[in-house]
This record gives sequence, C-alpha cells and structure tokens, in this order.
Amino acid sequence: MGDVLAFPSNRPADEPDDVDVPLPKLRDVIGDVLRTERLDQQRTLAEVAGEAAVSLPYLSEVERGRKEVSSDLLESICDALELPLADVLQRAAERLRVDAGTQRGSSFQLRAA
Amino acid sequence: MGDVLAFPSNRPADEPDDVDVPLPKLRDVIGDVLRTERLDQQRTLAEVAGEAAVSLPYLSEVERGRKEVSSDLLESICDALELPLADVLQRAAERLRVDAGTQRGSSFQLRAA
Repeated sequence: MGDVLAFPSNRPADEPDDVDVPLPKLRDVIGDVLRTERLDQQRTLAEVAGEAAVSLPYLSEVERGRKEVSSDLLESICDALELPLADVLQRAAERLRVDAGTQRGSSFQLRAA
Repeated sequence: MGDVLAFPSNRPADEPDDVDVPLPKLRDVIGDVLRTERLDQQRTLAEVAGEAAVSLPYLSEVERGRKEVSSDLLESICDALELPLADVLQRAAERLRVDAGTQRGSSFQLRAA
C-alpha cells in the first residue's frame, strides 16, 4: 500500500519522486486569499497598503506567499479589506482542501483499482 | 463617515473605548488549536517538539500565542500531530467565530441593561 500511495494521483507512476508537488503552505494560501479579495474589491496594492499602513512591496510579497505575514500586520490588512480574520482562515482552509483533492485524486483511483 | 467607521462593527458606537476586548490574533488561535490537539492526543510538548524538530520552548511559545509560527515550522508541527493544515485553519476560523459571538453577546447585554 505504501508504494501505491507514494505516487500522487496526477503524475505517472514512473516519474521520479523529486517532482512531487508540495502542498501550499500557510503563507501561500493566506496571500492568495488576500490577493483574491483585494482584486474582487477592485482595489490597488497602493490603496490597501496605505489603509493598512504597510508598505506596498511588503503587501505584494505577502500576497505572493514570498513573505510571512505577522499576526499584527495581517490584522491591519484584514481591517483595510474589511475582511474578518475568521473569513480569511475559512477561505484558506477551503482552498487547501481543493488543492489536496486535486493532488490526491488519482491516488485514490489507483487504490480502488 | 470616518468617525463612525472608527468603531469596530461588533460593538456599539456609544460604548466607551476601554471595555473593548481585542479579538484574538492569528498567532493566538493557531497556538490554541495546536495545543488543544496535542492535549487531545495526550502527548507532551517534548514529544511533539522532538518529532517536529523544533525546540520545546519554541513550541510552547507558539502554543501560547507568544511567538509567530513560520509557515515551514507550522508544517512540521502539523506533520508531527498528523493534523492537516486545512484542519488547523478550519478550527481556528471556528474558534474566532465563537469568540466574536461571545464578545458580541455580552456587548449587547451591556447595551440592553
């Protein structure tokens, strides 16, 4: 069973292990949620960064998952977006589940076969 | 409009500033979720820290919301607890909602009194 599960669903079984795609990390999904919300609100990086009192490059890096966001600055960004932290975490959890489902999909098919 | 918005939405505008209890931050709820899960598993700080390859004091500080957890170390701690990151975020979101509800509840009671 270990051998079968070692192959993620969406790549062929004869592909080497080192191409295994890692799951997104906390900074990736939080950045993604913040960016999506800002774009949905049709606001610029400059607008949100200004209102949150963070630098534009910092917000940009956070949105792209390049930088860890501190709890305090995340709170400021959430305030600027009028997006409760609970909603950010909820959306991040859902996004991770979708990603995990996509990656795992064929592995389950392999087991069932 | 600026003056009205200066009051967070979950407390009445006529309530004095000093009774405002700040909402928990990301580090608080994540620490709380990790600690609760570890205790549910009846494991010690030393066991989980060892398996996650983080120091015991660091894990302890993270659990108490005293330290920001990096995405990489959070991933290691989640692995050690066999708790998917999506579950951590989901539980954290639920905990924030409960806290917000509790705070709103008493705020309304104060107003009604």
